[in-house]
Amino acid sequence: MVHNFNAGPSILPHTVFEEASQAILNFNNTGLSILEIGHRTSLFEEVLNEAVSLVKELMKLDENKEVIFLHGGASTQFFQLPMNYLSKDKKAAYMDAGVWGTKAIKEAKRFGQVDVVASSKDRNYTYIPKDYAVPHEAVYFHYTTNNTIEGTQMHSIPNLSMPLVADMSSDILSREMDFNRFAFIYAGAQKNIGAAGVNLVVIDKKFLEKSSSTVPSMMDYKQHVSNGSMLNTPPVFAIYVCLLTLRWLKKMGGVAAIEKINQQKAGLLYDTLENIPLFHLPVAKEDRSLMNAVFTMNNEELEKKFLALCKAEGMVGIKGHRSVGGFRVSMYNALSLSSVEALVALIKDFGNKYA
Amino acid sequence: MVHNFNAGPSILPHTVFEEASQAILNFNNTGLSILEIGHRTSLFEEVLNEAVSLVKELMKLDENKEVIFLHGGASTQFFQLPMNYLSKDKKAAYMDAGVWGTKAIKEAKRFGQVDVVASSKDRNYTYIPKDYAVPHEAVYFHYTTNNTIEGTQMHSIPNLSMPLVADMSSDILSREMDFNRFAFIYAGAQKNIGAAGVNLVVIDKKFLEKSSSTVPSMMDYKQHVSNGSMLNTPPVFAIYVCLLTLRWLKKMGGVAAIEKINQQKAGLLYDTLENIPLFHLPVAKEDRSLMNAVFTMNNEELEKKFLALCKAEGMVGIKGHRSVGGFRVSMYNALSLSSVEALVALIKDFGNKYA
Repeated sequence: MVHNFNAGPSILPHTVFEEASQAILNFNNTGLSILEIGHRTSLFEEVLNEAVSLVKELMKLDENKEVIFLHGGASTQFFQLPMNYLSKDKKAAYMDAGVWGTKAIKEAKRFGQVDVVASSKDRNYTYIPKDYAVPHEAVYFHYTTNNTIEGTQMHSIPNLSMPLVADMSSDILSREMDFNRFAFIYAGAQKNIGAAGVNLVVIDKKFLEKSSSTVPSMMDYKQHVSNGSMLNTPPVFAIYVCLLTLRWLKKMGGVAAIEKINQQKAGLLYDTLENIPLFHLPVAKEDRSLMNAVFTMNNEELEKKFLALCKAEGMVGIKGHRSVGGFRVSMYNALSLSSVEALVALIKDFGNKYA
Repeated sequence: MVHNFNAGPSILPHTVFEEASQAILNFNNTGLSILEIGHRTSLFEEVLNEAVSLVKELMKLDENKEVIFLHGGASTQFFQLPMNYLSKDKKAAYMDAGVWGTKAIKEAKRFGQVDVVASSKDRNYTYIPKDYAVPHEAVYFHYTTNNTIEGTQMHSIPNLSMPLVADMSSDILSREMDFNRFAFIYAGAQKNIGAAGVNLVVIDKKFLEKSSSTVPSMMDYKQHVSNGSMLNTPPVFAIYVCLLTLRWLKKMGGVAAIEKINQQKAGLLYDTLENIPLFHLPVAKEDRSLMNAVFTMNNEELEKKFLALCKAEGMVGIKGHRSVGGFRVSMYNALSLSSVEALVALIKDFGNKYA
């Protein structure tokens, strides 16, 4: 039994693996593999249309939102977004609450003015900045909803007048949110949406109108929308895995239902860690992520022992990111409560033994 | 029995489907799916390293070549390349021999001077331009080795002094070529390399040195090379399918061996079509593609009948591109000779019946 706590690419529902595996041999009884079907066939059009419509349904998007699947991962959006909306005389506001936000800021600066209105760099990104002012002329405000590496999460949507842009790569579809408040949402698929190799973008029609029409075709959001994610050959299989994962989420009861389980999982883990002095939780309690729990020990030898023990018990992917150290336990939608329970049992044993 | 003549995404070897299907359930006996392994694990590093080394081996690349896998398909290279190498005072030369070349030219014009040194637009791209001069100051000469839509192929490498750049999306690894003569080669995977969702780039080290260092990180070839295709999360599964396909090609005897089969397949089809007056081959004989055979009939009713017959016999993907009409039979590496034989038998029957 393997428990996969990988930060991403990460665990997906087992039914998704089974269905994807089958579709590679024989997709929908066509006698063809999903890997060899043309993207301009009705076979794939149905896949894409259902995936888009499930995103709209699960996120409860209103009629003003367009949903597209793009190549390139969230890192491509770090520059594609400012390439479309910034120029020397235009300013965007960014929150700097972790590695990914920092990267997004770096790329945006190539295209226009960037105002970093809030940062938690002073305490190694262990909290989410709370009090900050955003200049009214900012064409958008950009933030990362969940900081995968640092284990922080923004639990409310900022109350701002300018268009909100969010990188939701590591917590999209994991909790109820008013997604309609955002002008632009993007998320690499490889946590809660599907496998690595595709990027989900939700864009408000009014915000779309303001995008550039002079950028290269592949950078042009309007062209991607008007071509229904088929401006060029889309990553067919990656989108199919999204469809399977979205179907699974719907079957599980949707975002509200999965949020309850996510709270149970994170609650159990954080409660356990809080009660064992051996472990240290660096993140401000109110900003803890439900997706990625980060913790450390004060003893390097014990850390190694704990890691070896986890490995022996089939617990995969719990080593912390090299920039933070310690441990990181990722608990995306597809991770079952029983995996967290197994880890918690191991943590308790370890705590008792080395207290 | 299905015969898949799709133009792309297209047929892959059956063993690739079987192995990919298995790896989704249990990758290398890890108990993990290939879809849930971290890209910074040794599990994936081995996949990537073997894929890169097989590309080098099969293409017989010298030590001056770097091999990377990028997001975004060939269409992204249409702008990423000129973004790196062109500016208002720099010129590139392009050949315009089909839809994809035309698109590449359009994107290049956004970044610098573009000299279209040769075009076959005058005869609807039914031939490859032969006599043309390329200005010596061109920073590169760009052409498409095989025109998927129009069914033409360039059977020799131009003898030019400036760096050669080629879009080899639809014929890479299908025939022996001195790949070392190119400064830059790119190819969407979804024909001869693997499934849709990843792009192969081969770049000469000297040409790499001349790339821009001020473009966005995801557009920066040097960063992709120095990060070994892992500047951001790569499309893990798509690269794994490349690896499986490359292994298959090696087992088949490599490029020289597959070229012989490709010549047999195309030879059989073209010979058959040439001898039946019902069918018309629009492409200049010396420029016919071994990968995509384009043909038409003079009778629309008969075309419909032929298409229906093919469909009834499990022949998939033979309808011509909407811009050309008629039929297109794609015969990539993974298509077996027996599929072409089956089609040829059907063509002969049809020819006899409606002669």
